[in-house]
Amino acid sequence: MKGLLSRAASIAFLLVGATARAEEGMWTFNNFPSARVAQAYGFEPGAEFLKKVERGSIRLARGCSASLVSARGLVMTNHHCARSCIAQLSRKGRDLNALGFYAESETSEIKCPDIEANQLLGIVPVTERVRAATKSKEGREFGDAETAATAAISQECSTGIDIRCDVVKLYHGGQYDLYKYRRFQDVRLVFAPEESIAFFGGDPDNFEFPRYNLDVAFLRIYVGGKPFLNGDYLPLAATNISEGQLLFTSGNPGGSSRTLTVAELVVARDFELPRFLLNAAELRGLLTEFQKDGAEARRISNDVLFGVMNAFKGNKGRFDSLVQSEIINAKRDQERVFRERVAADPDAQRHYGGAWDAIETAVAKYRNDIGRRYEVLENRNGPHSQGGENSGYAFRSTLFDIAKDLVRRAEEAAKPNEQRLREYADANFPIRRQKVLSPAPVYDRLETLLLTFSLGKLREYLGPDDEDVKVILGPSSPEQLAAWLIKETKLKDVALRQQLLEGGKTAIDASKDPLIMFFKRIDPRLRAVRGRYEEEIAAPITVNAGLIATAHFKLEGTSTYPDATFSPRVSFGTVKGYVERGRAVPPITYIGGTFDRATDADPYRMPPSWRSAKGDLNLKVPFNFASTNDIIGGNSGSPVIDKDARIVGLIFDGNIHSLGGEYGYDAALNRAVALDVGAIREALAKVYKAARLLRELNQPGP
Amino acid sequence: MKGLLSRAASIAFLLVGATARAEEGMWTFNNFPSARVAQAYGFEPGAEFLKKVERGSIRLARGCSASLVSARGLVMTNHHCARSCIAQLSRKGRDLNALGFYAESETSEIKCPDIEANQLLGIVPVTERVRAATKSKEGREFGDAETAATAAISQECSTGIDIRCDVVKLYHGGQYDLYKYRRFQDVRLVFAPEESIAFFGGDPDNFEFPRYNLDVAFLRIYVGGKPFLNGDYLPLAATNISEGQLLFTSGNPGGSSRTLTVAELVVARDFELPRFLLNAAELRGLLTEFQKDGAEARRISNDVLFGVMNAFKGNKGRFDSLVQSEIINAKRDQERVFRERVAADPDAQRHYGGAWDAIETAVAKYRNDIGRRYEVLENRNGPHSQGGENSGYAFRSTLFDIAKDLVRRAEEAAKPNEQRLREYADANFPIRRQKVLSPAPVYDRLETLLLTFSLGKLREYLGPDDEDVKVILGPSSPEQLAAWLIKETKLKDVALRQQLLEGGKTAIDASKDPLIMFFKRIDPRLRAVRGRYEEEIAAPITVNAGLIATAHFKLEGTSTYPDATFSPRVSFGTVKGYVERGRAVPPITYIGGTFDRATDADPYRMPPSWRSAKGDLNLKVPFNFASTNDIIGGNSGSPVIDKDARIVGLIFDGNIHSLGGEYGYDAALNRAVALDVGAIREALAKVYKAARLLRELNQPGP
Repeated sequence: MKGLLSRAASIAFLLVGATARAEEGMWTFNNFPSARVAQAYGFEPGAEFLKKVERGSIRLARGCSASLVSARGLVMTNHHCARSCIAQLSRKGRDLNALGFYAESETSEIKCPDIEANQLLGIVPVTERVRAATKSKEGREFGDAETAATAAISQECSTGIDIRCDVVKLYHGGQYDLYKYRRFQDVRLVFAPEESIAFFGGDPDNFEFPRYNLDVAFLRIYVGGKPFLNGDYLPLAATNISEGQLLFTSGNPGGSSRTLTVAELVVARDFELPRFLLNAAELRGLLTEFQKDGAEARRISNDVLFGVMNAFKGNKGRFDSLVQSEIINAKRDQERVFRERVAADPDAQRHYGGAWDAIETAVAKYRNDIGRRYEVLENRNGPHSQGGENSGYAFRSTLFDIAKDLVRRAEEAAKPNEQRLREYADANFPIRRQKVLSPAPVYDRLETLLLTFSLGKLREYLGPDDEDVKVILGPSSPEQLAAWLIKETKLKDVALRQQLLEGGKTAIDASKDPLIMFFKRIDPRLRAVRGRYEEEIAAPITVNAGLIATAHFKLEGTSTYPDATFSPRVSFGTVKGYVERGRAVPPITYIGGTFDRATDADPYRMPPSWRSAKGDLNLKVPFNFASTNDIIGGNSGSPVIDKDARIVGLIFDGNIHSLGGEYGYDAALNRAVALDVGAIREALAKVYKAARLLRELNQPGP
Repeated sequence: MKGLLSRAASIAFLLVGATARAEEGMWTFNNFPSARVAQAYGFEPGAEFLKKVERGSIRLARGCSASLVSARGLVMTNHHCARSCIAQLSRKGRDLNALGFYAESETSEIKCPDIEANQLLGIVPVTERVRAATKSKEGREFGDAETAATAAISQECSTGIDIRCDVVKLYHGGQYDLYKYRRFQDVRLVFAPEESIAFFGGDPDNFEFPRYNLDVAFLRIYVGGKPFLNGDYLPLAATNISEGQLLFTSGNPGGSSRTLTVAELVVARDFELPRFLLNAAELRGLLTEFQKDGAEARRISNDVLFGVMNAFKGNKGRFDSLVQSEIINAKRDQERVFRERVAADPDAQRHYGGAWDAIETAVAKYRNDIGRRYEVLENRNGPHSQGGENSGYAFRSTLFDIAKDLVRRAEEAAKPNEQRLREYADANFPIRRQKVLSPAPVYDRLETLLLTFSLGKLREYLGPDDEDVKVILGPSSPEQLAAWLIKETKLKDVALRQQLLEGGKTAIDASKDPLIMFFKRIDPRLRAVRGRYEEEIAAPITVNAGLIATAHFKLEGTSTYPDATFSPRVSFGTVKGYVERGRAVPPITYIGGTFDRATDADPYRMPPSWRSAKGDLNLKVPFNFASTNDIIGGNSGSPVIDKDARIVGLIFDGNIHSLGGEYGYDAALNRAVALDVGAIREALAKVYKAARLLRELNQPGP
């Protein structure tokens, strides 16, 4: 799928309606509806159960979920969550995504260049403190005050490089909680199967069910150069899952849009999603043809193409759900009914009644003017982004991102912590530093391809006569500028990056590196559109969505879950099939089905290792299964847990209907898709002969 | 633009609201509002003027407009209307789109493989005859009866291979007219400039203004191997255009959607246009990267890529106009008001009141089920297509189209003329035959690329487990199947095609050509979806749109123009600038501006011929101009005519706002974009030294 934080992950931070159904909900650990579970399933998850799950869960900070599965820091996640690392550790003639990887001993485990893992230590409410800081402010002032307050709270909490503190805005400003994590940046690759079985069926089967994917990878957390010894891990169950079984998932759903206003949904349908999809479709075509150049072209571009196709299919599903289903009409009715309720209460009307129109006004500015420019120049993640994570559509290049980070970091670090662009607050430094100093290889050919494409989109989206375009391109064509920048920059040298990072503003001011100079020259224009965006769009949306959230609290109570925010959440559900176009889809597939589905062509060609192990494999072992757990992108790699807190499965996808889960949970059709741990054991034993790993996994629980 | 009949050209055949403003309207020759022109401009175009314009106008049957400009059959059209021919006449190392072409003598003029030119001879009303045949029929029966009636009418009229007769459905069934043309299939290339000046600014400047394009080509019609001698031509004016000047255009606007119901517009916004755009975007990326392989790759794919990008930008503009403007809301209001008016009249309500809901029901079937399958398997041209022109998204291949045509032709020819699929009626045979027997080169490499892509889309759009997909792909991957079909088919041999065409059903049944066998095998599935589509979607839409049209006639009179139908139309307007984001855009550019805009990189690099001629050129000659004439795709190549029936310009585009003209004319912003004939003369004289051509053009008028 999926779980990689895609664009949709940023559409978030709102309040979910009070009508949550049975298994709907991505619940926080400090507000889990245990009584509801007890009522429906006769099992009440207690504080001890939840604490155990919380401690055994791991967040991969760049967009996935995972779990601790041994006392020596072994971590289980999806192959597709580790695939950037796997690609980075590959080299010409040794493509580890194609070949797979298994470290026969701990000493042959290899460090991933830029994975950060987080383990939740605790949650502290900080709503009142943020509210006090933002009280009666609006526009830019509100945004600045909110940024300053959260920067200060995070900084107080981050007592060392190994502690990460995030202020999480829940219910879109209805509540602020401080999440404190232990941070790990030494994470090593232990095992990964071949992509052809991890992602069997490829793009055609992605987000579909039935499925046959061994989408698993094992990593290991190291502390001080040694495996992370801990008593918090969750053991793998010895049993297979069964239909109807009660299951929990623990993970970090990246973002959902279940409480956006109608005006915001219409913008998603008409602007954000089409823009994203058209860009991704073209890039997909470009990269697909690029790969025909041979194995090395495939190797260096595979991870980017996977990301593009995955995000394309996911967002296409979201788009389809908005145009095909009755979501928008239903939301329009809900909104009308709730607004009438607010209007009927003079006090509520005075405080909250104007919020919807205020959001519509902000959204109209986004549609007509600022939106496209903001997405192109500064951040391609639509209007609900927290900013800073992705560059604009104009600048798709790792080296560009590094130049941007170095220049902005130098400039921002010179300001007091509370006055910086929020992504440059001190608490965010370690993860940005890891990326800038990552030894992951950068390929000139791919960089040139991507930057040529994206600078071409700059000219296409804003027009050749636009002032920003003229300043950025100068007299060059996109091809000429991209080729020159990538050829001439020395930022491929990590030592130079380190020197510029540590040299701060003096070093940056003195740098004659063409990419650094290019970014210094254009940044004022990027900051200008960001400023307008934050003042005219982001701040009023936050303020008014917060008002709507508060109105819901006041009028309906708080017994619901917040929209997903890529922070730890728990869901519950059962193994369950569904009916699609009149045909029953059983919830469990078996290893044998993979061989039935295989052909002699990608993406249905099984790897040689599996073909030769067929005689040894128990074909009746469950392989993948569907469950009613409410998950979303970011949940990839989440453990699926039984009531004894043992891991029975590994989330790796949702079915096609789950994509509409962005906007609302449909119990009849939404399904999480997971890999059975029995299949993992079977493959490790029979296909990969991974005795060392199996021994470690077979330890009894802590 | 590029009036080449794009997808939008098929969204047509409806009735335009009675509120047409001043210069709005694409009028038929037999219903031109001369009095309105007289009132506004003091000049009344009389019958003689209109007849002269009608006779001097030429339709290029595959999607463009043109004019006769000499007594020896010289035809002026756009470079982009001749570019397929130019590409077909190129060969390795001699890319005529890049180099340009000028025949120094008549004997060096080269025949275009598949251009058909038509000259209108007359228009006869046939509404009553069609109505009598379809009376009180519905569903499939209605469609069959309408097809049979139009086939019979056309056949009676087509008295020879050189006569083409089309029954044109105006006002979406409100009126049927028989258009009789003289048909010419021997059309030769006389002159074409280099693409770099014909399409200066390329895709970034396409559909924009100001512009600097020498988008002209000259062709010559031959009859019996000799130039077509005629007295009908329109002479080129000796003067340049000036601001405010009254101008007429005569051409064949391909299709507009100004009278679709709201339900149909929503389907265009949410389904048809996004599907088209996503497909085109990906293909654009693929072909762009393919072209990086070198000059030969560029040469063989250039025309396809141009078509894809042109259609992409045009349809993107249409999509943007639907989501950005208030078109849909305005239509919703208009529709509600008119329906109330119908409802207030019991007789009207009984006859017409149910039409809107009936269309909505048909459209809902298209959305939920049949639409995607019909577009993928049979015809990628949305729900208002007349069918047959393009294969589905699954089959993008010239050789596939030829196989399809041969197989279907053989099967249909065995039926009575009135019972065939409409595109196989006898009257349609000559133009189909020309295509099937075209000696234009076919490139295996490009064919394989396109068929691989499109078979991949088949699997993506319908899913790998779909029954149609399984039957079509069999056990092969898209890559395998495409490579095999293109490699093994012998249909590249025109003699074989001729043999199969002339051998009819016997020859087709006996053929072992893999592409013929492939199509025979899959055609039942394609015909099945077409049948469902025609019965459940096309017929009810036609019947009910006809009812709505009739209701408008009854309640509002008929003093309006029908939606565009790629049949001859006249518009009027004036040379006029406009205001864009607060800035005045002057209506005329000058040759000198081209040099100011030029850079040393495509698409802003001028050709060497122009760079070296700069000193000779009069830089103050008007180059391109904007006028308020109401045009749309298909109008490309239309002559712009002054009140003395002299040609002063050549339509080649509309500005970005004109794309919204698909749905409604906005006098403030919609502009036609044309090339001044003075610039043509200047270039022919100073850059191309085309003395022979200039002499011919300088003959006084007939």
